[in-house]
Amino acid sequence: MRPVRYNVAASLDGFIADKQGGYDWIPLDPTVDFGALFARVDTVLLGRHSYELVLRDPSAASAWPAGSRIYVFSRTLDAADHPSVTVVRDDAAGVVAALRAEPGTGDIWLYGGGALFGSLLAAGQVDAVEVTVVPVLLGEGVPLVPAGVPRATLALTHSHVYPSGMVGLHYAVPGARAT
Amino acid sequence: MRPVRYNVAASLDGFIADKQGGYDWIPLDPTVDFGALFARVDTVLLGRHSYELVLRDPSAASAWPAGSRIYVFSRTLDAADHPSVTVVRDDAAGVVAALRAEPGTGDIWLYGGGALFGSLLAAGQVDAVEVTVVPVLLGEGVPLVPAGVPRATLALTHSHVYPSGMVGLHYAVPGARAT
Repeated sequence: MRPVRYNVAASLDGFIADKQGGYDWIPLDPTVDFGALFARVDTVLLGRHSYELVLRDPSAASAWPAGSRIYVFSRTLDAADHPSVTVVRDDAAGVVAALRAEPGTGDIWLYGGGALFGSLLAAGQVDAVEVTVVPVLLGEGVPLVPAGVPRATLALTHSHVYPSGMVGLHYAVPGARAT
Repeated sequence: MRPVRYNVAASLDGFIADKQGGYDWIPLDPTVDFGALFARVDTVLLGRHSYELVLRDPSAASAWPAGSRIYVFSRTLDAADHPSVTVVRDDAAGVVAALRAEPGTGDIWLYGGGALFGSLLAAGQVDAVEVTVVPVLLGEGVPLVPAGVPRATLALTHSHVYPSGMVGLHYAVPGARAT
């Protein structure tokens, strides 16, 4: 099975972007080893909004290994305009279930955002939740999980304290469906 | 100076109670040493709602040392009905500033809730934020910080992983005002 990993930075109060969609509150910590974190990734999942953020700031895409397959989940995007990615219009859960069941050992990085995460979590298609907790309180912003998603109990698998005061908390999702 | 410590359990997505105000998602972890955590506490601050929760479940009050001074912040509570606590109707920030400036070394536990924390944080009257991150995603509930509170950058001072998968994250508040 190829695991789907929701890996994201969040404020201590659970926001992945501020009210204006900004990320300037996330410190640049040179000790965060993105190469090691994402070495096994060969597939990346993005919601439409996250994908458009990456298009505006292509350096964001350098976080995943070159050659990764990119899936963008959107009912409005015209696939013909985005030939370098696979646009998924319907049945996100079914498409991700098929990716998880593929042979091989590569990881699937659920890049975001929260809405895509919420729908895949509710469908049992997320295997790991990996949050880098940033030492800041935002008060409002884009939530880690959208309201209305069923409660999910997680199992801590790993934690790491960074010199910047960020703390990586990695969890398995016991409710993930077998592939 | 006597530090004000906001010590609270929160879900990974930043809620201190679920939508119904419930706490059944917080595991009972016998390794959490409340005695050590609160050994230095001699003063407890509560908002009106938190105080009413404690009145309904008096075992909650066993978390703080016997003999602690209790301050309840409320514009509606009748002080005459609650002779064992000090009811603060106005100038919460001024009252807490005076408590912080008192001689001695006791700690002040800001028990909650989020609204009282938010107003005291904005007034520079919170010295430490101590969150026990519970391995659960709630999706909605009572937020750790109410919306509209100015952004606050914190400094990680301590972290601890509990066998239950809860993680204690303790921060200093660099923006706290000198007393």
